[in-house]
Amino acid sequence: MTYQVPIQDIRFILRELADLRGVLALPGFEEVSEDLVDAVLEENARFVEQEIAPLNRAGDTEPARWSEDGVRTTPGFKAAFQAFAQGGWQGLPHEAELGGQGLPKLVAAPVTESINAGNLAFSLCPLLTDGVIEALSMVGSDAQKARFIPPLLEGRWTGTMNLTEPQAGSDLALLKSRAVRQDDGSYRITGQKIFITYGDHDMAENIIHLVLARTPDAPKGVKGISLFIVPKFLVRDDGSLGARNDVVCASLEHKLGIHGSPTAVLLYGSGQGEAGEGGAVGYLIGEENRGLEYMFIMMNAARYAVGLQGVAVSERALQHAAAYAAERIQGNALEGSAGPVPIVRHPDVARMLGTMRGLTEGARAVAYVAAGYRDKAAHLADEAERARCKAIYEYFVPIVKGFSTESSVEVASLGVQVHGGMGFIEETGAAQYYRDARILPIYEGTTAIQANDFIGRKLVRDGGAVARGQIAGMRETAAALRAASGVHADALAMIGERLDTAAGAYESALAFVLEHVREDIRGVFTGSVPCLMLAGTAHAGWQLGRSALAAAAAIGEGSTDAFHPNKIATAVQYAAHVLPRTLALQSAIRDGGLVDRYVRQAQI
Amino acid sequence: MTYQVPIQDIRFILRELADLRGVLALPGFEEVSEDLVDAVLEENARFVEQEIAPLNRAGDTEPARWSEDGVRTTPGFKAAFQAFAQGGWQGLPHEAELGGQGLPKLVAAPVTESINAGNLAFSLCPLLTDGVIEALSMVGSDAQKARFIPPLLEGRWTGTMNLTEPQAGSDLALLKSRAVRQDDGSYRITGQKIFITYGDHDMAENIIHLVLARTPDAPKGVKGISLFIVPKFLVRDDGSLGARNDVVCASLEHKLGIHGSPTAVLLYGSGQGEAGEGGAVGYLIGEENRGLEYMFIMMNAARYAVGLQGVAVSERALQHAAAYAAERIQGNALEGSAGPVPIVRHPDVARMLGTMRGLTEGARAVAYVAAGYRDKAAHLADEAERARCKAIYEYFVPIVKGFSTESSVEVASLGVQVHGGMGFIEETGAAQYYRDARILPIYEGTTAIQANDFIGRKLVRDGGAVARGQIAGMRETAAALRAASGVHADALAMIGERLDTAAGAYESALAFVLEHVREDIRGVFTGSVPCLMLAGTAHAGWQLGRSALAAAAAIGEGSTDAFHPNKIATAVQYAAHVLPRTLALQSAIRDGGLVDRYVRQAQI
Repeated sequence: MTYQVPIQDIRFILRELADLRGVLALPGFEEVSEDLVDAVLEENARFVEQEIAPLNRAGDTEPARWSEDGVRTTPGFKAAFQAFAQGGWQGLPHEAELGGQGLPKLVAAPVTESINAGNLAFSLCPLLTDGVIEALSMVGSDAQKARFIPPLLEGRWTGTMNLTEPQAGSDLALLKSRAVRQDDGSYRITGQKIFITYGDHDMAENIIHLVLARTPDAPKGVKGISLFIVPKFLVRDDGSLGARNDVVCASLEHKLGIHGSPTAVLLYGSGQGEAGEGGAVGYLIGEENRGLEYMFIMMNAARYAVGLQGVAVSERALQHAAAYAAERIQGNALEGSAGPVPIVRHPDVARMLGTMRGLTEGARAVAYVAAGYRDKAAHLADEAERARCKAIYEYFVPIVKGFSTESSVEVASLGVQVHGGMGFIEETGAAQYYRDARILPIYEGTTAIQANDFIGRKLVRDGGAVARGQIAGMRETAAALRAASGVHADALAMIGERLDTAAGAYESALAFVLEHVREDIRGVFTGSVPCLMLAGTAHAGWQLGRSALAAAAAIGEGSTDAFHPNKIATAVQYAAHVLPRTLALQSAIRDGGLVDRYVRQAQI
Repeated sequence: MTYQVPIQDIRFILRELADLRGVLALPGFEEVSEDLVDAVLEENARFVEQEIAPLNRAGDTEPARWSEDGVRTTPGFKAAFQAFAQGGWQGLPHEAELGGQGLPKLVAAPVTESINAGNLAFSLCPLLTDGVIEALSMVGSDAQKARFIPPLLEGRWTGTMNLTEPQAGSDLALLKSRAVRQDDGSYRITGQKIFITYGDHDMAENIIHLVLARTPDAPKGVKGISLFIVPKFLVRDDGSLGARNDVVCASLEHKLGIHGSPTAVLLYGSGQGEAGEGGAVGYLIGEENRGLEYMFIMMNAARYAVGLQGVAVSERALQHAAAYAAERIQGNALEGSAGPVPIVRHPDVARMLGTMRGLTEGARAVAYVAAGYRDKAAHLADEAERARCKAIYEYFVPIVKGFSTESSVEVASLGVQVHGGMGFIEETGAAQYYRDARILPIYEGTTAIQANDFIGRKLVRDGGAVARGQIAGMRETAAALRAASGVHADALAMIGERLDTAAGAYESALAFVLEHVREDIRGVFTGSVPCLMLAGTAHAGWQLGRSALAAAAAIGEGSTDAFHPNKIATAVQYAAHVLPRTLALQSAIRDGGLVDRYVRQAQI
């Protein structure tokens, strides 16, 4: 088995932490039972473990290749994508009215995570397609929805997001691609887009590019950007495929990781299609000059999904390292042993695995809890409650994206270290996660971009209201942990104390941010990423603290499942080795003003 | 320019922090003037920048290749090695009586660092050769020294260290390679060695393998290991090369990084040489069964050198990222700007670069300070003083190895992040450092092995005496920083406060280790790597604090060199963003007992 979906942990988090029952009781989910959720998770695990996880290494060693006739993906990917489509997995998270299965995000989240863990490079194709479906469903015209969504949902076509140009990465104000309106209401698009994931491939019949471009008379900056649908093959009125559009893949990037995912340079309007002169044929979505706003619809979904990718790579790296540490015999035990022992017996290997496991399971729990709020924001009957849950979900998006992905780099790096010299040998497989994970804190908005969003829109805008509510929750759990009795009381108390310290650090950082952001914005943003990481570290610790309480309760009720003491051990390791980082982060945030002053004075 | 040797920082550290003057005044260095040191550094910089740094990327993209006729290294490496040999660089750190140049380690350290920064994969060949020269000079017979050392020093031959076997990595007790004594006093060696750096190549005429193996009647475990010289080509009495010995390279590893460095599987006694049956011809070094002890001679030198490799990769990654951040225009300034600005103006990019620079320059200063103690340990007239300096140097070796290499992984990862999406594209070059650096915390003893050495032999054995002396030094610098006046008083005070906190954290961790190591060894070693990292973080902060004081003094004396305010800014950034990590590490160390208890109870 190359990868096993951690289905017991998934179920535990859904039920004990993320209020699965509450979500299933929401209006609109009447037909979704806990049994159905279990069945979906089990079928998903089978699909991931048997169909796509075994292709993960092939994606790395036999990357997608450019050819004159289009990009050829890794052998096996096309068949796997067909299986994916036939399994209905693309439709799983989407509304029933669109033709999706209408399952809660809370159920879609573990499914997405597992597919990504099975094969990160493969899964980017459905991930981007999800974003396109989401954007079309929110802002597309009825005709656009009818034409484009069903084939995307069915996995016959796939989608891409076209933002980046060589001079315009994080700063979309610098976009140059042009769109000129034609008499028939369509547009002709010209320009060059880079870093287009699955910008060309052979896994589906058609590719629907969503492209940001400027009309000739558009305002400068981000307020002059419009969003267009540009299909690879034009679509006739009956839905059949017509002329090849003037969008071509000029080359693929040679990347550090996710080799199986073709990253394309796309040329629009280079005169190579069959659809006439003047550029690629595109169709405006919504209104002109509102493209960035629409793109953010895709982007927020994609950011959350990339956060799940972080959890996914972490889990896979963890499983790989844990298996090696259990098998590799090397060195006597510190306390004495008859001979060499499996390296997991050495305290530092246990520390590394525990840190990996805590970061992975903590980030997973935070992501699922966030998904639960997303479902409530969409389905609760009470409007004020919906708004409250929406604000909490949006608060979580940069945390899920930033914390899970930064953690995945650390987890994958520890995974290499656990393997010792073997970790540096590519055939071992640990190195692939280290390479693959490195893109996650970059794409769909770097960690700094997430941190800007977090501070500017999620902490400052509401005066810290949502954050304070979360901190109060942390304090409550900390108090429960410290008050716990029973055989695990000392462990729970320690977790409670470290969680309390973390909550205090978060509170102090929040106060600093709110107090200084107006008069010293640079000083505050010098601590932006530390602040985001502090929040993520504390939230993950909170969820692991709740896990420990739930596990202790299960043990108290007679559970003999090793899962429960293991969960407590993971929470203990995280509380000891990770939660106190919040102290360092808080200190860094509070020094922001002085740091910024010195950095600006210096000429470095 | 692909890489610039940071010669101003090197000189600053040598003079202001590492007591170059005191070292040059030692007996034995009468002929080494400060001017000579400058000339060596300048010539070295020229060699690095012009000869080997430009080959760094070729080493990555055109790795060494196995062939039936032996391993072929990257085009250009052979000529570069000849230039290296002709420049006398191999001899630089070695005693004049051996034919070396007899320069202080304090001067050899920046030279080694720079060569490694220029080309890490290339530099492994001289690094290993240094270790072989050192071992032969310490424990070889006069005949062995006379025969093998001169060609190694001249760069006509190179050397390797052969420890690892598939079942024996960190645990050398599990070694199986055999050595059988022959009537002529030589031995026949059989067995398989893996991970042999430059185990075969085409850059020199001969390769001298130092090989650990067991004689037939040797005791079990590490006390039954002997050390042998096994030349690739046997050496005739006149020094000319004779028959091809029965040691062959069976394959090269496919590695995550340092592709230019061939990592060989070597077969001894597979019957493929011209030197008869029964195994490769080898010559015992010193006495039987003392091989591990001798190997540690090489290993300590190699560990220190690998620490310098950490500094080297960090510096190179830093230069790459800083150049990109100064050029890449993206996004308006937070405080407002007329248009997009270079990304270095964004606070989080400045944070990343400052963290990279602080870790790099801090680790460099610690390494050079350690080298100064090494020189004093070897050259001081007073025996007690020599012993004191030797203990301090040995205390530093695991810190230099562990902290510099772990930091290099972080620095290289931040370097990718600074580049955004471009960092993930191999052609950009940032990804290579991220891949290359990853081996550094593994080879020549993983960070956990360094941490075991640190706690067991460097903290506990002397009851914490050396460490307490160092902590007292930190406290003194912290007091001086807090008492400083002048325009930079607030910055110096902040650095002083963070350094004081770090010293306190170290003191507390040390007390915990000493108090609990007897009764709860596993609990203490659960915090072994955190303890080593705490020490490294505090020591680097100490040296940066001293740097800030020296820079402020220079400014006070009228310096208008931007180097000085920049140095203060780096110290400020490190004090804010890195030093407070010591709080988290201390907390983790103190929780070790509970963590270990729970990990052992759990079945994970």
